[in-house]
Amino acid sequence: MTVLYKANAARGAVWAKLFAERAPGMAFRVWPDVGDPAAIRYLAAWQPPERIMETFPNLELVFSVGAGVDQFDFSLLPPALPVIRMLEPGIAESMAEYVTLAVLGLHRDLVPFIDQQKRQVWQEIQVRSAASRRVGIMGLGQLGQAALDKLRAFGFPLSGWNRSPRAIDGVACYTGETELDAFLGQVDILVCLLPLTEATRGILNARLFSALPAGAALVNCGRGGHLVEADLLAALASGQLSAAVLDVTELEPLPQGHGFWTHPKILLTPHIASMTRPETAVDFVLDTITRHQAGQPMPGLVDRASGY
Amino acid sequence: MTVLYKANAARGAVWAKLFAERAPGMAFRVWPDVGDPAAIRYLAAWQPPERIMETFPNLELVFSVGAGVDQFDFSLLPPALPVIRMLEPGIAESMAEYVTLAVLGLHRDLVPFIDQQKRQVWQEIQVRSAASRRVGIMGLGQLGQAALDKLRAFGFPLSGWNRSPRAIDGVACYTGETELDAFLGQVDILVCLLPLTEATRGILNARLFSALPAGAALVNCGRGGHLVEADLLAALASGQLSAAVLDVTELEPLPQGHGFWTHPKILLTPHIASMTRPETAVDFVLDTITRHQAGQPMPGLVDRASGY
Repeated sequence: MTVLYKANAARGAVWAKLFAERAPGMAFRVWPDVGDPAAIRYLAAWQPPERIMETFPNLELVFSVGAGVDQFDFSLLPPALPVIRMLEPGIAESMAEYVTLAVLGLHRDLVPFIDQQKRQVWQEIQVRSAASRRVGIMGLGQLGQAALDKLRAFGFPLSGWNRSPRAIDGVACYTGETELDAFLGQVDILVCLLPLTEATRGILNARLFSALPAGAALVNCGRGGHLVEADLLAALASGQLSAAVLDVTELEPLPQGHGFWTHPKILLTPHIASMTRPETAVDFVLDTITRHQAGQPMPGLVDRASGY
Repeated sequence: MTVLYKANAARGAVWAKLFAERAPGMAFRVWPDVGDPAAIRYLAAWQPPERIMETFPNLELVFSVGAGVDQFDFSLLPPALPVIRMLEPGIAESMAEYVTLAVLGLHRDLVPFIDQQKRQVWQEIQVRSAASRRVGIMGLGQLGQAALDKLRAFGFPLSGWNRSPRAIDGVACYTGETELDAFLGQVDILVCLLPLTEATRGILNARLFSALPAGAALVNCGRGGHLVEADLLAALASGQLSAAVLDVTELEPLPQGHGFWTHPKILLTPHIASMTRPETAVDFVLDTITRHQAGQPMPGLVDRASGY
């Protein structure tokens, strides 16, 4: 009974060490050193290998090493093979930090101040109260709720939008396509934390931006595929959007010469908003394997119909 | 009985409107339109006028329109004239936001990411847990405590240093000169919120930086006079400090060509960390005037011996 890890090799070494400590009876291998393919029961991967069942005929579970599974091509995975999204506290903790950082940064004019520093300009901008700055989060799953928990303390009026109904203390919750415009109309700082699915691809587009109050700001720490990049540039040029903080882009790494790099109203980070923390990820994997063996429900099990 | 405002004229107009609404019986004037000097009983100023008692013989109270009073030359003010620091909730709220923004920014490598964006480099940096990042605040007054309240939720180990002893829930408190090095030795992100006095001028210097763990980071939202600028540049060059977020500088506005503007390890903001909010400042002034007339204790009364 072997666990195979197939993702960043440096992190794989950390996983191996943690498995040796915490589950000494379980074999653990890092791709491409797979050993006996028939022994592989569990796979933790960023992207699964091709021809997965032919290669590993006894595979029982696949884990995504990240919070999302949009990088998986489900058509290549047998329908009966359970896929588990990573649910470990480090992912939500780091995302909540990043969202708070991005929202406070937009609230406190960090993007224009970075630009002013570049131009050697020292010019104050009048502070507004957090109570006058409405923050809205798209995607109210584990990550969205962790971010809201942190934002609450600052006094921002909070709202959220989700495909299925949610009830969150102190947060005005909107549901589904029909309530999207009502949600957008009252958001000054919009945060995208949606999963990337066929329903959400390109959702951050000109139409959505036009439904926001003029001068609103955007944080995208979902996926690059959520954003229509040309529409963002147009909205920043017209002033419909005042600034954007982007952790993800359509192509990653962002190509040299792309207009985002030098845009004075865009702050870029290299897809680091949320990062799986090996210490807690290994515990989650071990716990899920135990649950699987006992036939118990597994948190993080992906519903292939909804895509997350 | 007249209140005279002597600071930024645009904000003075906002104060005038608020006084008219909230204290219609009280005359309010904005410098230089002082009217009858003998009628001036209360002065709200960033810097008091020269020859203050000769000009306004019936002056009873002076308010600083900011949280600090280091811009006042007390030798020019009669010893018996009470000076009141601004204590309105907007100052603490905006400072707590800024400190959280700066600390999260340093924790999540924002300064190197801003530099990477400039250089069109997309390179992740492994996230560390907040639990492994020790945050220490110098100055545990109203502002320091408000910042700690916000930082607590993120799980940073917290400590503080203050001239006089403090006890704050969940914060390791150090007191006075004798405990300064013990405090510094366990701080990864250091935040200066001290008042500027003769005892604290130049306190952020090479000796202090050398007492921090190698690679520590600095936030200065006290005053520019706290920092020995050449020592900061040397500590950043040697790697003893990894990054700095500065809201204040020795000369403000920071002169063109100053080395801070283009430094890849320095993030600058133009003295906006904390800003007095007219809406609540006017209430504080009116409440203090009432207390003064009734002979009650006045919060914010400056102790001239300590300088704050």
